[in-house]
Amino acid sequence: MSDTKKEVRIGLIGAGWMGKAHTVAYRNAGVIFGDDLPILELVSDVNEAQVKVASKLLGYNRWTTNWVEVVTDPDVDLVDVSTPNSMHFEMIKLALENGKHVFSEKPLSLSGEESRILADLAKEKGVVNYCGFSNVMNPANQYVKELVDTGKLGKIMRIHATYDQDMLLDPEIAITWRHKKALAGTGALGDLTSHLLSVSQFILGDIEEVIGIESLVIPTRPVEVGSSEHADVETEDLATFLVRYKSGIIGDFTSSRVATGRKNYFYYEIQGTEGTVVYDLERMGEVQVYFKSDADVDNARDAGFRTVLLNPNHAGFKWFQPAAGIAIAFDDMKTLQAHELLQALSGAPYASDFEMGAKVDSVVSAVKKSIETRQWETC
Amino acid sequence: MSDTKKEVRIGLIGAGWMGKAHTVAYRNAGVIFGDDLPILELVSDVNEAQVKVASKLLGYNRWTTNWVEVVTDPDVDLVDVSTPNSMHFEMIKLALENGKHVFSEKPLSLSGEESRILADLAKEKGVVNYCGFSNVMNPANQYVKELVDTGKLGKIMRIHATYDQDMLLDPEIAITWRHKKALAGTGALGDLTSHLLSVSQFILGDIEEVIGIESLVIPTRPVEVGSSEHADVETEDLATFLVRYKSGIIGDFTSSRVATGRKNYFYYEIQGTEGTVVYDLERMGEVQVYFKSDADVDNARDAGFRTVLLNPNHAGFKWFQPAAGIAIAFDDMKTLQAHELLQALSGAPYASDFEMGAKVDSVVSAVKKSIETRQWETC
Amino acid sequence: MSDTKKEVRIGLIGAGWMGKAHTVAYRNAGVIFGDDLPILELVSDVNEAQVKVASKLLGYNRWTTNWVEVVTDPDVDLVDVSTPNSMHFEMIKLALENGKHVFSEKPLSLSGEESRILADLAKEKGVVNYCGFSNVMNPANQYVKELVDTGKLGKIMRIHATYDQDMLLDPEIAITWRHKKALAGTGALGDLTSHLLSVSQFILGDIEEVIGIESLVIPTRPVEVGSSEHADVETEDLATFLVRYKSGIIGDFTSSRVATGRKNYFYYEIQGTEGTVVYDLERMGEVQVYFKSDADVDNARDAGFRTVLLNPNHAGFKWFQPAAGIAIAFDDMKTLQAHELLQALSGAPYASDFEMGAKVDSVVSAVKKSIETRQWETC
Amino acid sequence: MSDTKKEVRIGLIGAGWMGKAHTVAYRNAGVIFGDDLPILELVSDVNEAQVKVASKLLGYNRWTTNWVEVVTDPDVDLVDVSTPNSMHFEMIKLALENGKHVFSEKPLSLSGEESRILADLAKEKGVVNYCGFSNVMNPANQYVKELVDTGKLGKIMRIHATYDQDMLLDPEIAITWRHKKALAGTGALGDLTSHLLSVSQFILGDIEEVIGIESLVIPTRPVEVGSSEHADVETEDLATFLVRYKSGIIGDFTSSRVATGRKNYFYYEIQGTEGTVVYDLERMGEVQVYFKSDADVDNARDAGFRTVLLNPNHAGFKWFQPAAGIAIAFDDMKTLQAHELLQALSGAPYASDFEMGAKVDSVVSAVKKSIETRQWETC
Repeated sequence: MSDTKKEVRIGLIGAGWMGKAHTVAYRNAGVIFGDDLPILELVSDVNEAQVKVASKLLGYNRWTTNWVEVVTDPDVDLVDVSTPNSMHFEMIKLALENGKHVFSEKPLSLSGEESRILADLAKEKGVVNYCGFSNVMNPANQYVKELVDTGKLGKIMRIHATYDQDMLLDPEIAITWRHKKALAGTGALGDLTSHLLSVSQFILGDIEEVIGIESLVIPTRPVEVGSSEHADVETEDLATFLVRYKSGIIGDFTSSRVATGRKNYFYYEIQGTEGTVVYDLERMGEVQVYFKSDADVDNARDAGFRTVLLNPNHAGFKWFQPAAGIAIAFDDMKTLQAHELLQALSGAPYASDFEMGAKVDSVVSAVKKSIETRQWETC
Repeated sequence: MSDTKKEVRIGLIGAGWMGKAHTVAYRNAGVIFGDDLPILELVSDVNEAQVKVASKLLGYNRWTTNWVEVVTDPDVDLVDVSTPNSMHFEMIKLALENGKHVFSEKPLSLSGEESRILADLAKEKGVVNYCGFSNVMNPANQYVKELVDTGKLGKIMRIHATYDQDMLLDPEIAITWRHKKALAGTGALGDLTSHLLSVSQFILGDIEEVIGIESLVIPTRPVEVGSSEHADVETEDLATFLVRYKSGIIGDFTSSRVATGRKNYFYYEIQGTEGTVVYDLERMGEVQVYFKSDADVDNARDAGFRTVLLNPNHAGFKWFQPAAGIAIAFDDMKTLQAHELLQALSGAPYASDFEMGAKVDSVVSAVKKSIETRQWETC
Repeated sequence: MSDTKKEVRIGLIGAGWMGKAHTVAYRNAGVIFGDDLPILELVSDVNEAQVKVASKLLGYNRWTTNWVEVVTDPDVDLVDVSTPNSMHFEMIKLALENGKHVFSEKPLSLSGEESRILADLAKEKGVVNYCGFSNVMNPANQYVKELVDTGKLGKIMRIHATYDQDMLLDPEIAITWRHKKALAGTGALGDLTSHLLSVSQFILGDIEEVIGIESLVIPTRPVEVGSSEHADVETEDLATFLVRYKSGIIGDFTSSRVATGRKNYFYYEIQGTEGTVVYDLERMGEVQVYFKSDADVDNARDAGFRTVLLNPNHAGFKWFQPAAGIAIAFDDMKTLQAHELLQALSGAPYASDFEMGAKVDSVVSAVKKSIETRQWETC
Repeated sequence: MSDTKKEVRIGLIGAGWMGKAHTVAYRNAGVIFGDDLPILELVSDVNEAQVKVASKLLGYNRWTTNWVEVVTDPDVDLVDVSTPNSMHFEMIKLALENGKHVFSEKPLSLSGEESRILADLAKEKGVVNYCGFSNVMNPANQYVKELVDTGKLGKIMRIHATYDQDMLLDPEIAITWRHKKALAGTGALGDLTSHLLSVSQFILGDIEEVIGIESLVIPTRPVEVGSSEHADVETEDLATFLVRYKSGIIGDFTSSRVATGRKNYFYYEIQGTEGTVVYDLERMGEVQVYFKSDADVDNARDAGFRTVLLNPNHAGFKWFQPAAGIAIAFDDMKTLQAHELLQALSGAPYASDFEMGAKVDSVVSAVKKSIETRQWETC
């Protein structure tokens, strides 16, 4: 990186778990990649006690309880939006209008339409607009993209993708903002499928149309733990939908937050005419790949899915481990992301932009609409 | 079995691979279960040379080249339909009209409507009407049905099912009847998905509505091996669809005959509120099961999917192997089927009846229709 | 096969489960391979009631309760020894001395020394001498042998092999001949490891020296089910040993009959300088293979163990199934064995001869000796 | 932690990759556990240029090229030995003699005898003596230890353990200190098996006697990359040995540095009378466990190995991830280790002491001796 590069001053909105994770990632990017450490200029949180503590612990120069100050502060270059989902749109919009670079956790907003506004506005302003899709940085997904882009899998025919967890299987878990339409927009779709869709967008490109189906397994939940009073759950527990990509690929996506036994089952299979690849995030370090060419020799006797262990030759891996088969952590994706973000401020390209964010949110919105209209909907 | 039971006289239509397999299964049922051996009375095939040889080799008393003789012969009790698909409807119908018991390979016909006619006619005639869904006899699927029926999996929420092969991936494979709409009706749907649907019907019951999408990857094929002349492929290479069951379960089904690297990938996952089960026919002898109750003890530290190896306590297994972990063959399903069929002639219950056959064919027809209308279609 | 070949007349000693399995296999070999059916001439068993029933059910021409009549009968060409282990030596020896072809279940005797006598005698007599090592006929093991023989795995460095079951884990299971030294010779070693050793002999050749260790987990057992009277178990529950092959390969073998959770865990890994292969009989239809050459391209990014599904191009498979990924049964190995045996009578080569049987028994004896002497022992 | 606790001043010997990793771990322990950050007082390395850079980058107060200064410096409380193996003994010994706490990478020395001297000296001095066995901190191994200690696996019968890599498979890789007896002591045994032995010691306790076998696959290597001049490799490429524990458990251990296809294959199976556990470090986040009690209900139909995904209820995991199935990194073990070490300085207990280190080294020495003497050797 250039020695003369201006130091980046960060304004963080949201001093909770995610804000802390981002700040740690900025630091780790410095240690691991030698990136210039950004200046931690200003942090805001509605909770004054929390923001005071976090400011000191994380090392921010100043704090405020008013997020508007962050997006308007002349000494902030990059606004980091790490708040709950329902605030994203307003915050990002004002930050962009003030000409700030923006790094926001997904989703950009609660609807495809609003996210589209943000993506267009970011382009108009010419600022860095980074959406926090961690899975895009996973060396496994980067490897799969390369397999697709280099043609090793041939013409892609189909994708099957699932993201299942059972964290909300217990009906005694109290209701939260995730269960409320006004606060979360959607349930499993926005929370889980969106991660699959970011990887889909990254690897396979635009989805043209969708049709879905959903299910609500636990229709009410206690208003708080142990309470006998229940409130309605307004967001879907699981949803499945068919997709047709602009390229003609067809596929199916499913997510469930009540998938008994599944913990972090982010799983997909992509089938091409020359090869097929399978990935399961619960076994983060391995990718299954089949090459049709293996069947063209010795009467197909030696062909089979290869269990490829991630190694330093796969993008990103070498920064964390020196040899294949050694476990990297999911948190390392956050470090790779912070590095890519910091490089983007110097003009380097990046995939997880607001355009990707808007497209993902647009698919989620179209799926929701298709469930209501019982029709195929364009994304 | 009753000593006074009248011996069953079989009339086989179709002396090819499947007819031979059925005849071997009748014999094996005798050896393994001690069933009375049926009388192999009459066999027909349009190919005179083939039927002569087969008749002798398989041990049939008489042969003919005219299948109508089989379904009208007074010395035939059970008509076994083992011909290509497009002839099934006509043959089964005439056999039923002549009051014969009928054992037919799936599908019953090329459309849900015709299969419904046969199912109703069979009920009216009160004869044994057995549809050859081998997977229903698989001890693994019987085990899964028991897990569902006994409530061990709780309320079923969802199914994901796939049957993928890559047998037709090579574009140089010549066109066959499977590629022609008039002869096969459908492609991957009727050939592969129907197997999944039989197991779905067996375990989860009726599907109410579907919507699908399909893809034709190899649109033309040589008219014969090595020919430069090509003909149009009229049936889908792969298809995916969403389902809603009458019980409220939702799900997705996919099949492909060009799924690179997949050989006999009959795979499904059924998620219930108390447990989840996963089965893969490529590992025929093992079933993955997760019980939520395992997570209720010791802070969920010992919970995980169990790899259950089929053993003599699973239905059907004990007739073939004395201990867990010893491989049974897919052909053993045909023996179990022949046994169940022969028992049915003495009044024993059986699941794979024409009603099941008609329901499976009706789902396939509804999926095809939904692809054309781009609407949800009732089955 | 020659039309003029003299029909083979079989004399079976032992009308129990194994004798029945052999007889069924002779029949199946006829159906599947078109082998001339042998004449089932004479069957003997000490239990008169049993031999009468078996003779009729299995279709033998004559029966006797005196096995000596079988080995001396002029109308018997091939003596089939299917009795408990402790009788093998005497029966085989007399059969050979009478110039009969012999097919015996393993082990040939209870010691390497006696088995050596039989192997030498068989050679001297020039008769067919076939030892029933079913695993040698497994298409998976045949495939591994080809990988080794063709050099695809390079120079073999090492083998790790295990055969574990937990059938005898329950201490309430009553004592049987398998627990008595005089009747069984050894425990897990002779019962389980011998299967591994047959495959080792088939694929890797002669073992030069061994040293072992053993454990007796359940030292006494009820004299019969439910009895409070206990008797001493005299044979080992588990044993592990190191080996050095004549070729320089080193390795380790283990078997246990009290291996909690293991059912039919016949598992081995063979590492060569160009590739490694892993096989697990509980997943009979798949072989894991790694080729170093896969790592020589594209920076080793696509290299990994291949999960090869057995298919019709692997020796023996095509006789049972038409496509990859369809389950064949372990019983199919017995059919392949019967076929090879019948072919051997016409002069075809076969691997599982008494020489192999003697070598396997000699390794078992050497391991037992090494446990006593606490020294490396030559096989 | 106590507010009044004296800050710990660290003196690091060795400014290479491992020294850097240790320093990062001290920092991370502070961030993740809130441990008081130690003072990075002094760092030494024979390479002056390197130690200057490292000192600045890592943040040490002072540097030197003479390690003796570190172990004698009055302002150093804890000596961190991160140099190549052959220097460990001398450095640790002098540090102990100067009354320092010592944290050393394994092995403590190149022989069991020397390591015994260090373990005894450390006890005599009453200082913290921590040996860097990272695998002991792995939540998976901690979980297995708990399964053993709580009796969930019953009486342990046997262990099978392997640590295989293929990093040195390529014969063109130049010779290094790892290939020289005087510098490395042993090959795969000390480099790889020692990791298995630390976990074995942690979970199963003391080994009483061993006998081994070894192989040298690549007897010479280029003196440097590309050179045609070769030098002798003096340390084994692979070794296997039998063990008998003081408790009566028997087992086998193997390691290879030329195990084609294996990358980080740290794998073990422990069989007890009530359960069996299998762990593979290449799938760091999952443990396979079988409980015999699962087979005691419903006719053993639901029993099978459970695939347990590590979750926050397993020791150590919760500090890194909030839910099951999310990947933690192998580097996180180093953080857990640094935390345990810093806690030890306040009197907290720790398992990886010099006693463990000496026992591991003593087993390695006994195996080496047994290979020479061809006798069982006491550890």
